[in-house]
Amino acid sequence: MDRELLIEAVKRQMPEKRYRHVAGVVDTAFMLAQRFGGDPDKAWLAALLHDYAKAWPTDRMERIIREQGLPPELLAYDKELWHAHVGAWAVREELGIADEEVLDAVRYHTSGRENMTLLDRIVCLADYMEPSRAFPGVERIRALAETSLNEALVAGFDSTIVHLLEKGKTVFPLTVLARNDLVREIRAAGTTIES
Amino acid sequence: MDRELLIEAVKRQMPEKRYRHVAGVVDTAFMLAQRFGGDPDKAWLAALLHDYAKAWPTDRMERIIREQGLPPELLAYDKELWHAHVGAWAVREELGIADEEVLDAVRYHTSGRENMTLLDRIVCLADYMEPSRAFPGVERIRALAETSLNEALVAGFDSTIVHLLEKGKTVFPLTVLARNDLVREIRAAGTTIES
Repeated sequence: MDRELLIEAVKRQMPEKRYRHVAGVVDTAFMLAQRFGGDPDKAWLAALLHDYAKAWPTDRMERIIREQGLPPELLAYDKELWHAHVGAWAVREELGIADEEVLDAVRYHTSGRENMTLLDRIVCLADYMEPSRAFPGVERIRALAETSLNEALVAGFDSTIVHLLEKGKTVFPLTVLARNDLVREIRAAGTTIES
Repeated sequence: MDRELLIEAVKRQMPEKRYRHVAGVVDTAFMLAQRFGGDPDKAWLAALLHDYAKAWPTDRMERIIREQGLPPELLAYDKELWHAHVGAWAVREELGIADEEVLDAVRYHTSGRENMTLLDRIVCLADYMEPSRAFPGVERIRALAETSLNEALVAGFDSTIVHLLEKGKTVFPLTVLARNDLVREIRAAGTTIES
């Protein structure tokens, strides 16, 4: 499927405002891939597809998780996590996307995971910092992303975790494992995170 | 072993200042057990023993973890977590404590765990809020503990997690699972956590 058709297929899944966010993630992921040695074409594609199922009805997502063998533990956690796994399933089924690296970057863009690939990190970070994002700490994430993908992504996960704590919500354990991995990589590289 | 001998055995493991903290946890745990329907005698004992290995040298703790079959994943996380598992091992070996409920409360007093027992919760919360503790948020924990063991303990775990994030340290996954359990219990009980 060529790029224009993919863009049209994505736009059909969501309201215009959500697509403006997607377009910001596409531009940011492409830029981050160039900055940190990733594959800009894969970054473009994964970013375009990352929120494919974001605006789908909750009951449709729940049915797909149950019927298509997606991780059932998702259902015990915040609905915000569902669209990423459902989206990875959907772009394979509906658009024929077969690149596992791209599908993983879609699948784990919200939660992160252990041993995140470079593409996973780029899409996840781009989702945190694309230009229309405005939340406490986003400027610090953008500043860190000038030089360190890992430090910026830790700051992104920190903002998510603190938000969940403040709201009295559960924290998806995989996000903590993803962050722990990055913290260890940063430590092993001999740099320090600002405290 | 009678109470006075146990107290003397604990005092021999640590400097006087650390024992003053232990004495605060003992009083607080006893009070919380009365308030929330726990066993005050078990709370007294587990609290007395909870920091048995806290002042032990790191290399001694590491050797015990490796040689006595304690969870090896502890070694990948903060040393603060080691003394709880080592302490549970030590009070069985050295003092003959055989009550598994008491040993678990010692073992999980720092990390928490899934499906925490009432005794686990009491000792863990007492450790957060005993009178000599002074850290950001401790007054809120004490206020919540007037009426809700679970809400106070969630606030305690939140303070630990935020502290670890701010310091750029890893977060022990079991602490997040412990907190998630409590959040779900609170939600199921129909109360809300302050945001």
